[in-house]
Amino acid sequence: MRPETRLRVRQAADQLGFVVNAAARSLQTGRTYTVGMITTDTIGRFSIPLLIGAEDALGAGQMSVFLCDARDDPIREQYYLRTLLSRKVDGIIVTGRRTQARTPIGAELPVPVVYAFISSTDPRDCSVVPDEADGARRAIRHLLDTGRRRIAHVTGPEHHHSAQVRAAAAAAEVELAAPVLHGEWTEAWGRQAAGMLLSGGADLDAVFCGNDQIARGVAEGLREAGRDVPGEVALVGFDNWDVMVDACRPALTSVDMDLEGIGRTAAEVLLAAINGSPAHGPITRPCRLVPRESTAIR
Amino acid sequence: MRPETRLRVRQAADQLGFVVNAAARSLQTGRTYTVGMITTDTIGRFSIPLLIGAEDALGAGQMSVFLCDARDDPIREQYYLRTLLSRKVDGIIVTGRRTQARTPIGAELPVPVVYAFISSTDPRDCSVVPDEADGARRAIRHLLDTGRRRIAHVTGPEHHHSAQVRAAAAAAEVELAAPVLHGEWTEAWGRQAAGMLLSGGADLDAVFCGNDQIARGVAEGLREAGRDVPGEVALVGFDNWDVMVDACRPALTSVDMDLEGIGRTAAEVLLAAINGSPAHGPITRPCRLVPRESTAIR
Repeated sequence: MRPETRLRVRQAADQLGFVVNAAARSLQTGRTYTVGMITTDTIGRFSIPLLIGAEDALGAGQMSVFLCDARDDPIREQYYLRTLLSRKVDGIIVTGRRTQARTPIGAELPVPVVYAFISSTDPRDCSVVPDEADGARRAIRHLLDTGRRRIAHVTGPEHHHSAQVRAAAAAAEVELAAPVLHGEWTEAWGRQAAGMLLSGGADLDAVFCGNDQIARGVAEGLREAGRDVPGEVALVGFDNWDVMVDACRPALTSVDMDLEGIGRTAAEVLLAAINGSPAHGPITRPCRLVPRESTAIR
Repeated sequence: MRPETRLRVRQAADQLGFVVNAAARSLQTGRTYTVGMITTDTIGRFSIPLLIGAEDALGAGQMSVFLCDARDDPIREQYYLRTLLSRKVDGIIVTGRRTQARTPIGAELPVPVVYAFISSTDPRDCSVVPDEADGARRAIRHLLDTGRRRIAHVTGPEHHHSAQVRAAAAAAEVELAAPVLHGEWTEAWGRQAAGMLLSGGADLDAVFCGNDQIARGVAEGLREAGRDVPGEVALVGFDNWDVMVDACRPALTSVDMDLEGIGRTAAEVLLAAINGSPAHGPITRPCRLVPRESTAIR
């Protein structure tokens, strides 16, 4: 078909609201212009920004992303994997709400797979992950840059991968003023930890927290004990979750893992793999620090 | 093919990890066993529970749900609609983060469409929506049942559909002790509103709030003004968002719209339509009240 003819047919089809039969197109080209995204993050707080980033990279109007929700359930995950493969997607992005490495979703799959946010234990797989240690270092450096010297760290469970990575990076960057406090990823734990730090008598001028909820709890605990944030104690959170950083008093400085950027990179890497240039191993992306009132110099 | 033969082929196929060619199956049966869900809720807080409910109703292992994110963008929405239709989904669920009626997603579509959480302005369309007025009435009745008599209402923007419906239902159920206060859906507004109620001198023993974030702000504002919640003032929120109700001090009584139930009903109605029995008009589902410490009797 000549280009002009093709264009005229396309225009006429558009005017008629004609819809391409995907099955027919796929039989001709071998491409479905569809990417599947399998997530275990039923909360959506992590998976949705990843999805948005992936869509931006793939380009609406050119490729579709279908999100499938596996709910941390291996059987459901395998079911969705088979469904996506049977519908001949061009590639798959696997994601979840923990950065810890996971077993590969399948072996010898007929389409490329890229892991986003989480990583695969198989070094031949490509994983796009946030550099959480970099994020922790940025938090500590920001506190040092704003004149803080006696820094404590309050974070999530001791066995949690992200808690470990962030705590180790913080401790490597500065000698912490108190032992790391581990607890839940909640505001209640943050409030309790603030009380522990104060009653322990440590002479602190800053607290770096493993997530924004803990940081908000610490802020409340300090305020209710009569300590001024940021006047006496500066605070940094992690995640840059809008609901938390804006509601925190004062507004919370936080580390942003750039989930949309991770989704975008994962989609770009997946596109390259679909086009015959697969990547292998981890691709780490830096974090960025978003300063707000809780670390202001007064 | 005889049933035994079919079974043996199926078993052998399973052992080999054989994947059914969906395009081929779809050409034979006319069914793709796939439902598309188009959401405008990029936050995910509303769409993910709806998705989970729909999946539960459709049954994992039998039908797949592909979530597509239209981001409140009509062009993107039409693109995804065409993509899903070209991939021959059996039906479509349209959802969003506002309950207000919207223009239909398309006319004379080749597959059934059901609206979930939001509704369509076309009365022939089927919409599964929460009965927000019922939720507001439950909140007021719970406050009356626990001995409260002088109830104020603090809620979101005056032009917001949900704020209007909930405020009207509350005012119809009890004579409010103060004019309805409209503001943002934020904690900051809740704190400010608490100050306004206190300085206004209204003799209140309860505040019903339009969402959980406002209620949490009111709780903080009251506590910091030395008022005991629930001893002096009881509090009810709306949404039953775990992050807010658990972190609120005291834990927040709230109205739950049962988003999973809405997703489940929408999927059931869609399945019936796919099987030739379409429903029309709105289907409203009741809310439920989840009592916590903030309305405890002391």
